[in-house]
Amino acid sequence: MNTFDLTPWERKNALDVLISILEKYYSGESVTRVSPPLNISEIRASVESADFSQPVSAANAVIRITEALESYIVHLGHPMYYGLFNPRPNFPSILADIISAFYNPQLAAWSHSPWASEVENYLIRLIGEKIGFPAQDTDGVFATGGAEANITAVQCALNHFFPDYGEKGALALSRRPLIYCSAEAHHSVIRAAKVSGLGRESVRPVPVNQRLEMDIAALEDMLRKDISGSYLPFMVIGTAGTTGTGAIDDLTSVADIAEKYNLWFHTDSAWGGAALLVPEMKPLLKGIEKSDSVTLDIHKWLSVTMSASMFITRHPDILGRTFRITTEYMPREAGKLDVVDPFSHSIQWSRRFTGLKLYLSLMVFGWKGYEEMIVNMTAAGVRLKKLLEQNNWEILNNTPLPLACFTDPGLKSDSEFIPWLSSAVVASGKAWVSVYPVRGINTIRACITNYNTSEENLEALVKTAGEFRSDYRDPGSIN
Amino acid sequence: MNTFDLTPWERKNALDVLISILEKYYSGESVTRVSPPLNISEIRASVESADFSQPVSAANAVIRITEALESYIVHLGHPMYYGLFNPRPNFPSILADIISAFYNPQLAAWSHSPWASEVENYLIRLIGEKIGFPAQDTDGVFATGGAEANITAVQCALNHFFPDYGEKGALALSRRPLIYCSAEAHHSVIRAAKVSGLGRESVRPVPVNQRLEMDIAALEDMLRKDISGSYLPFMVIGTAGTTGTGAIDDLTSVADIAEKYNLWFHTDSAWGGAALLVPEMKPLLKGIEKSDSVTLDIHKWLSVTMSASMFITRHPDILGRTFRITTEYMPREAGKLDVVDPFSHSIQWSRRFTGLKLYLSLMVFGWKGYEEMIVNMTAAGVRLKKLLEQNNWEILNNTPLPLACFTDPGLKSDSEFIPWLSSAVVASGKAWVSVYPVRGINTIRACITNYNTSEENLEALVKTAGEFRSDYRDPGSIN
Repeated sequence: MNTFDLTPWERKNALDVLISILEKYYSGESVTRVSPPLNISEIRASVESADFSQPVSAANAVIRITEALESYIVHLGHPMYYGLFNPRPNFPSILADIISAFYNPQLAAWSHSPWASEVENYLIRLIGEKIGFPAQDTDGVFATGGAEANITAVQCALNHFFPDYGEKGALALSRRPLIYCSAEAHHSVIRAAKVSGLGRESVRPVPVNQRLEMDIAALEDMLRKDISGSYLPFMVIGTAGTTGTGAIDDLTSVADIAEKYNLWFHTDSAWGGAALLVPEMKPLLKGIEKSDSVTLDIHKWLSVTMSASMFITRHPDILGRTFRITTEYMPREAGKLDVVDPFSHSIQWSRRFTGLKLYLSLMVFGWKGYEEMIVNMTAAGVRLKKLLEQNNWEILNNTPLPLACFTDPGLKSDSEFIPWLSSAVVASGKAWVSVYPVRGINTIRACITNYNTSEENLEALVKTAGEFRSDYRDPGSIN
Repeated sequence: MNTFDLTPWERKNALDVLISILEKYYSGESVTRVSPPLNISEIRASVESADFSQPVSAANAVIRITEALESYIVHLGHPMYYGLFNPRPNFPSILADIISAFYNPQLAAWSHSPWASEVENYLIRLIGEKIGFPAQDTDGVFATGGAEANITAVQCALNHFFPDYGEKGALALSRRPLIYCSAEAHHSVIRAAKVSGLGRESVRPVPVNQRLEMDIAALEDMLRKDISGSYLPFMVIGTAGTTGTGAIDDLTSVADIAEKYNLWFHTDSAWGGAALLVPEMKPLLKGIEKSDSVTLDIHKWLSVTMSASMFITRHPDILGRTFRITTEYMPREAGKLDVVDPFSHSIQWSRRFTGLKLYLSLMVFGWKGYEEMIVNMTAAGVRLKKLLEQNNWEILNNTPLPLACFTDPGLKSDSEFIPWLSSAVVASGKAWVSVYPVRGINTIRACITNYNTSEENLEALVKTAGEFRSDYRDPGSIN
């Protein structure tokens, strides 16, 4: 057996083989279909063909694995993937992942990875500035995704209002604490309430208005009733870009309600927060600066590889009060320095250097590059909606973000049409779209998630959808 | 501005430049000191020198970043790093990270990444077999680290015993639920209790015996008192390899107690679980097969890059009952297949393809390669302890794992000696060790975490410690 380092020749050979395969994939040469057929027994046979009693060379292993991935995953970086905001990963973030893998810095104790810790702090301050938080109050932490960032938000809000929560937990509460969010909010809010020991009953989904945004009057009405019903409202979550339809809640009004009723105001801008980087789009998020905390996924519109999110707050002490635990075994070299140990700010303990993906992307593209990318994709969204309308599709959602939820005006009452159409499009391998019900009516949900999706790609999507619609109306018309 | 893909030439150039730097680092050519001096203003100046209004080429960016990392982090992959089980990352796991970055599979819906999901399921079944769980009952999920895996365990135990927990949370409990673990257990257990809404008061640290293992008689005594005191004991956590001293609790006895008092028995074998892969070491973990669930960090002794852990349980339905949430927007293509959506088993939602690191490592090294690596490192631990004793150091911990907690027999009562020695060793850049108090006596904690740490490295550690000891006794004797 070799050492676990392999030999220099084996390393070079495996990397050469791998990089050449990956370049073909990244440049779009090796894959045409967006998504694979779901042949589960074939997939399982492929997985289980790896025999761990018969080692193979690293070069051989990467060939087999990349073949399997090219055959059996949805290609999220394909320009015809119109999905659930999984981005095409930008190249600098890939480089960042390679760097993190080799140096493998560990973000638990500051003194183990001071440069990495400070990079993350720097980015938190800069994004805090974009939000509009006072510089001296900004704090935050990198998370694996919006789900972890939203749990972090619920934890901070609980520890802010119930100082005994860390010691005594939810058991010490005589009344049920309540979290309010749009009925269209991401379901990670419900999971956050469950994980935090509140339970699903502590989440109050607020009805949405015609624009699918949180109905502020309904919110206030619910609050009044719950307060007189001896509940403890403590948190309201505004969403900037709902997963289903891209709705952006009226954050200024949510902030006003939060202030009036003394609630922690969290903004889940996992997707839409990217608009903070574009001066002319920032007004869409007006009010976000009044948030107590914000979720911003960088593995969504900021187009870095999985898994990467940011939680940012304007309460500089709350993360420490929520997560700090003193231990004997953690390094103390930094004991006298004015620094923060990452593990004292996070649900995680030892973790990966997530912030590098954004840092390296910003070094290469600059704020300006991000701004242009987001503006271009937003314009592509406008273009897609126009193309759809020109082709007699009806768009049922309202959002400035590049997401269209559409159906055929004549087939709206046919509940089978859209699921059939979505399955047909996905099965064709020509595009990936999903189904989302808007006010009870099924629609095709097509979101522009890839900065490379071009005018031709948009036309191809509309053409494919149109062909299948014809086929649905008149089976056999295409084939 | 370029596209976020960069041009093919820019990609090739950046990768060429980067790979050549990384190969020098990985082969040990570019770094000599284990840890950097902590010059915080220099570090911050380096971080903030990146000007995001002045983009640089990707090649330039990776040069600057790798220079900074080589100057300003502790080099966990250095053979003289004797730290907190941060491994040297094996090469196949680095390849896996590169692959995951390019393909960027998303593990939320099974149908998005069927091959990746099935790879993780396959590994969970295989490791479940090594634990000794019945094949048909084994389930699990990959996590970011032991902290997340331990939260997952607490969540599963709560949902198992309190079926209303997900709906009503801890508020519905009339009595306080209690978790028992060794006083030497990892503090992520306390954080798990806090995050889960139980609070720190729900964790009962059980005193340890002379071997620093959980005192089983004390555990039973505490249980009896707590039950008659109207508490609700529901969980006991055995540790297989404590962070401080490498103690392995008597898991068979813990299992007996768990059965007698109807507790969820979780084994935190984040570090020591690697012994499952070595037939002659497996008896050290006897009783683990009776666990309800197990934490095994693969970014510890299995030597893959951050962040990677496994949570494995023999309750096939508990993860789904704990974490499943039905949503409108998640893909349904796999609706009729007998598969599990990763997001329904995890605290996370969209996440990285973590399992690939272990899959690729096993393809290249096989079970046999892992077995040899773990046996060799265990033997190095025995050798280190022998060298220390030969050089008049006293070892205060008891563990078969490669970890020595040592002090000078004549300086035991001098509480300043060990912190001074640790600081001196770390500041010299020759090795990285930490301080850990064993039964109130400070010791140097030196753990073999790197499969490349050689006999010469062990001798160098003992020599360095000896020289500084002489200097402490007789200042000025070395310089």
